Amino acid sequence: MVHISLRSCNTPPSPIRRLSYLASAAEQKGVTPFYLNIGQPDVRCPQAFSDGVARFASSHISYAPSEGLYELRAEWARWVNTILDVDTSPERYLITMGASEGLVFLFTACCDPGDEVLTFDPTYANYLGFAAQTGVRLISLESSFEEEFAIPDDAIITKHLTSRTRAILLCNPNNPTGVLYDTSELTRLLELCRRHNLFLILDETYRELVFDGREPSSGISLASDDPHLVVLDSLSKRFSLCGARIGALYIPSPDLREKILYLAQARLSAPTIEQLAAIHMLKEVPASYLHDARKTYENRRDCMIHALENIEGVFCSRAQGAFYLLAKLPVEDAEHFARFLLQEYEQDGQTLFVAPAQGFYALPGKGRSEIRLAFVLEESSLRRAISVLQGGLAVYNAYS
Amino acid sequence: MVHISLRSCNTPPSPIRRLSYLASAAEQKGVTPFYLNIGQPDVRCPQAFSDGVARFASSHISYAPSEGLYELRAEWARWVNTILDVDTSPERYLITMGASEGLVFLFTACCDPGDEVLTFDPTYANYLGFAAQTGVRLISLESSFEEEFAIPDDAIITKHLTSRTRAILLCNPNNPTGVLYDTSELTRLLELCRRHNLFLILDETYRELVFDGREPSSGISLASDDPHLVVLDSLSKRFSLCGARIGALYIPSPDLREKILYLAQARLSAPTIEQLAAIHMLKEVPASYLHDARKTYENRRDCMIHALENIEGVFCSRAQGAFYLLAKLPVEDAEHFARFLLQEYEQDGQTLFVAPAQGFYALPGKGRSEIRLAFVLEESSLRRAISVLQGGLAVYNAYS
Repeated sequence: MVHISLRSCNTPPSPIRRLSYLASAAEQKGVTPFYLNIGQPDVRCPQAFSDGVARFASSHISYAPSEGLYELRAEWARWVNTILDVDTSPERYLITMGASEGLVFLFTACCDPGDEVLTFDPTYANYLGFAAQTGVRLISLESSFEEEFAIPDDAIITKHLTSRTRAILLCNPNNPTGVLYDTSELTRLLELCRRHNLFLILDETYRELVFDGREPSSGISLASDDPHLVVLDSLSKRFSLCGARIGALYIPSPDLREKILYLAQARLSAPTIEQLAAIHMLKEVPASYLHDARKTYENRRDCMIHALENIEGVFCSRAQGAFYLLAKLPVEDAEHFARFLLQEYEQDGQTLFVAPAQGFYALPGKGRSEIRLAFVLEESSLRRAISVLQGGLAVYNAYS
Repeated sequence: MVHISLRSCNTPPSPIRRLSYLASAAEQKGVTPFYLNIGQPDVRCPQAFSDGVARFASSHISYAPSEGLYELRAEWARWVNTILDVDTSPERYLITMGASEGLVFLFTACCDPGDEVLTFDPTYANYLGFAAQTGVRLISLESSFEEEFAIPDDAIITKHLTSRTRAILLCNPNNPTGVLYDTSELTRLLELCRRHNLFLILDETYRELVFDGREPSSGISLASDDPHLVVLDSLSKRFSLCGARIGALYIPSPDLREKILYLAQARLSAPTIEQLAAIHMLKEVPASYLHDARKTYENRRDCMIHALENIEGVFCSRAQGAFYLLAKLPVEDAEHFARFLLQEYEQDGQTLFVAPAQGFYALPGKGRSEIRLAFVLEESSLRRAISVLQGGLAVYNAYS
């Protein structure tokens, strides 16, 4: 066999997508899974985006500039300025193919192989993949169910900083827990980064999706000029545009910006049609769109938590934003149970696809009895899905 | 200053795009450059692609599968099978965001930091960027103007293989020289790879753009089942779809395919709209489209070479495919001359943007007096552009 790299052998398959083949197999034998494994919203994207695509009738699909179309960066800045009441300039934004590409760029530009990025378990599963791929050691400190996933004290964080630590990384609102960290927590982290000369990388993919009357909590409103700050952003979730692959980096540091631009130049450009459609959308999308989306997800969260609370032995995180929650199940091995649901269980021709949470922990052995659930379906479907979960648990635990 | 990685400091800016700011400055003072620096064709993309985009009217822009939509992989296989008279299956294709992403995946999956990939100078400039970014040592053997960029003998290649060599990489038809390597050359390289257990990575982005009645020369027609072979492919150039960011990897090795799938899962998916449009296009594009494109570029090549031959002291490569040629100028520092053209020279309000070729050489100090020219404009513009080059050279050399 031809040599395959160690870093690639260390790159885990996505816990969100790894069992997709079982879901396909279930569908083929006539069992329909509820797809709560993946953050693929069923909320319609803004009409203005579809209009933007439809208006596109060029006979030349040219490269965009590597840093993104200027007009898109200008509209993005305007959007952020309006939402957060700040004054950021287009020059500080760089358009990426989703937040995913942005994070690969950041890991590459901030770290050499063996360098460390500190984060908090549970964390977005694909961070583990990006770290393996770029040779970054992800040092993850535990945040626990019991303490509602509070970020550890400065003393604990400081104890884990080494001469090779380059950044602290946080997804806020959090994927997979749905927890929203407020500005006092962000301030604490930023001060820590200043003291230790680290980057604070905030993944704000879900920034505007916050519930119960909360306001978005962003590093940009905190310290928009601080060269320690980097913010990852994306249109995927808040505008239901997962397949458009349009994200952005907000980078106050001119040095870091220059290095990331060189990485971006090598891959030429992000897709042009979506950039043009996004310009049109950001100009035209009514304020009601996000208001309605927030309300929809808030109601779904309530519905899902209510349904989960009726199942004995199930505990779940109190999502304050994004559209996920983490649920602890009365099973030893949630991945085994997830396979069971897809392969052996059904209720009236339906079953459930969940993401086993172990892959959301960098710490080995953690999260084995947990799953991540995305509340991205209508309430009636969610209720039905959780009833499948309940029935599945009963059968599974009776057998084992 | 916060720490920035060494690998990122080693990533060069693109020689194709680095001087873009000077071109913008020229435009702002009313001087219009001919853009021969970049492979951004002015040929219209197939109508069927625009139709595919226009038909797209979904209110849900969902993620595609990480390996690409099955139907696109099936159409891609059908396309390759028709063009090359082979029988490849969709399962071996993985859709990437341009060939660029495909090569980053390959460097990551085949090499650990410090591992080596052997290639031939001059080579596509962005290979240098991808190598720096992924910690790969690009070992480049010289191919020379004098020998029409022939690939060095086995003995020379073998001498440069080490225990850390993982692959041989070749762009065919070649960017930047336009040289087409025939199947006997590919066979030789593949046998060498078999003997030394290396991957042969063939970048066939320009595969169908071959001139003078030549047939495409592809690794796939040579040995479609060989696990040593990997082919990079892209819609960008042959269909004038640079901004669509749709490429594909053809990977016979199931092991390598699995590892690349995990890398692809971390970044979720390639853009969905373009995948759908590409399916429509590959089904509907008439055979005449490529025939016409080939003829257009062939005529432009003739036109450009003819014009260049009239300039004293200029020599150029005999492009047999793609849409570039390499020109040796009677100047010491072609980058300095390129800056001069954009900053100080004009002919009736026009000037010329060329790519200095030094960035296309991994070997230090090589290619200093050379430029890459893309023949992506109409013949009248090309003639005008080369006349600007001629005038510019005269003034530049009179001054210096």
